[in-house]
Amino acid sequence: MSNRDRILELALRLMNEEGAGAAGTTRIAEELGISPGNLYYHFKNREEIVRVLFDALDAEFRSLLIEDADPPISASRFAAFYLRSFDLAWRYRFFFGGLLGLLRRDEELAARYRALQDWAIDELEGIATQLVKDGSMARPRGRDGLRSVALSTWLIWMNWIRFLQISGRETIEPSDMAAGVSQLFDVLAPYLDPAFEKSARRALARESPKRG
Amino acid sequence: MSNRDRILELALRLMNEEGAGAAGTTRIAEELGISPGNLYYHFKNREEIVRVLFDALDAEFRSLLIEDADPPISASRFAAFYLRSFDLAWRYRFFFGGLLGLLRRDEELAARYRALQDWAIDELEGIATQLVKDGSMARPRGRDGLRSVALSTWLIWMNWIRFLQISGRETIEPSDMAAGVSQLFDVLAPYLDPAFEKSARRALARESPKRG
Repeated sequence: MSNRDRILELALRLMNEEGAGAAGTTRIAEELGISPGNLYYHFKNREEIVRVLFDALDAEFRSLLIEDADPPISASRFAAFYLRSFDLAWRYRFFFGGLLGLLRRDEELAARYRALQDWAIDELEGIATQLVKDGSMARPRGRDGLRSVALSTWLIWMNWIRFLQISGRETIEPSDMAAGVSQLFDVLAPYLDPAFEKSARRALARESPKRG
Repeated sequence: MSNRDRILELALRLMNEEGAGAAGTTRIAEELGISPGNLYYHFKNREEIVRVLFDALDAEFRSLLIEDADPPISASRFAAFYLRSFDLAWRYRFFFGGLLGLLRRDEELAARYRALQDWAIDELEGIATQLVKDGSMARPRGRDGLRSVALSTWLIWMNWIRFLQISGRETIEPSDMAAGVSQLFDVLAPYLDPAFEKSARRALARESPKRG
């Protein structure tokens, strides 16, 4: 593993465990037993480390959404998509937990985050639109019905892990992500075809990572 | 106005504008033109200021929920309750924006916050249960249907302003809270009696603070 990758891996772990403010460059260099000069050769400062980690999150999230946008969307693909997106939020939880502070400190990162968010809400609306076309979902009433559903699922997704963390859960496991997906399904449920919903919930139960 | 109140007011304003990390005791004393000793006479440290501000938020939120729990719940009271709760989240937005960091730094505050959150989700479920009893709302399917609706509304409520802030809105006005209430209504809409929903949306439009 290169020093660059070791720096990224340690920064991600420290920030996930202790919060976005945890991974100072001095501490990272010390814990890895490398010189500060070596660290600064790879990254100008902590902001740059966060940006590179965000770029990885960004790329993974986009490939996840694009991959799952082709019609028709089966119930098991639908469930797997949400499970993987919650798993992604879990692996980069430092980001969503400290989002406001991170974006306030770095305008470039803020612009990149907003571009991803705008794109993602559009894509989520696109998935809902496709489900309606597939006959798997009824169109919500109101002019912006599908948009609003997309936004509600986005709000729950981006805040689920933060919610678990501030709720004082001793440990949070990847298996807790299934509860988040289930919460999302509850928001979509009034519009889903009952057979599609049933299949999606079965797929969720089958594919959820098991506790511990 | 007492120095104690002036300290609280300035701390709240600074943290709302710049984030929960903004209001150091040195800066507050300087900006108010009081001695550090005077500040420390009132508050041991910044954590104590945050706790006192949280207690005010806690008390306001509890009185808001209790006030609105008596049956039957009219559509206009329902709309007014959500509008006022979003207004409250707006006035204490530093808290919800920096929540994870604040609770990580102060276990006592974390315990108080969790007690409020548990109580609030119970109360929100109680309001939904009352709406079902009143005939204003259908019971969502599933064993924990009302609980899940309460949790979804809680997740949207506690994250709405943070969402606006990280979305890069140049300014956020109290009038933007109406959009958050509307987002919440969209989550409840599939279960609401159509006439009740229509009245609630009318009351929301009527009572929303106007922009500017």
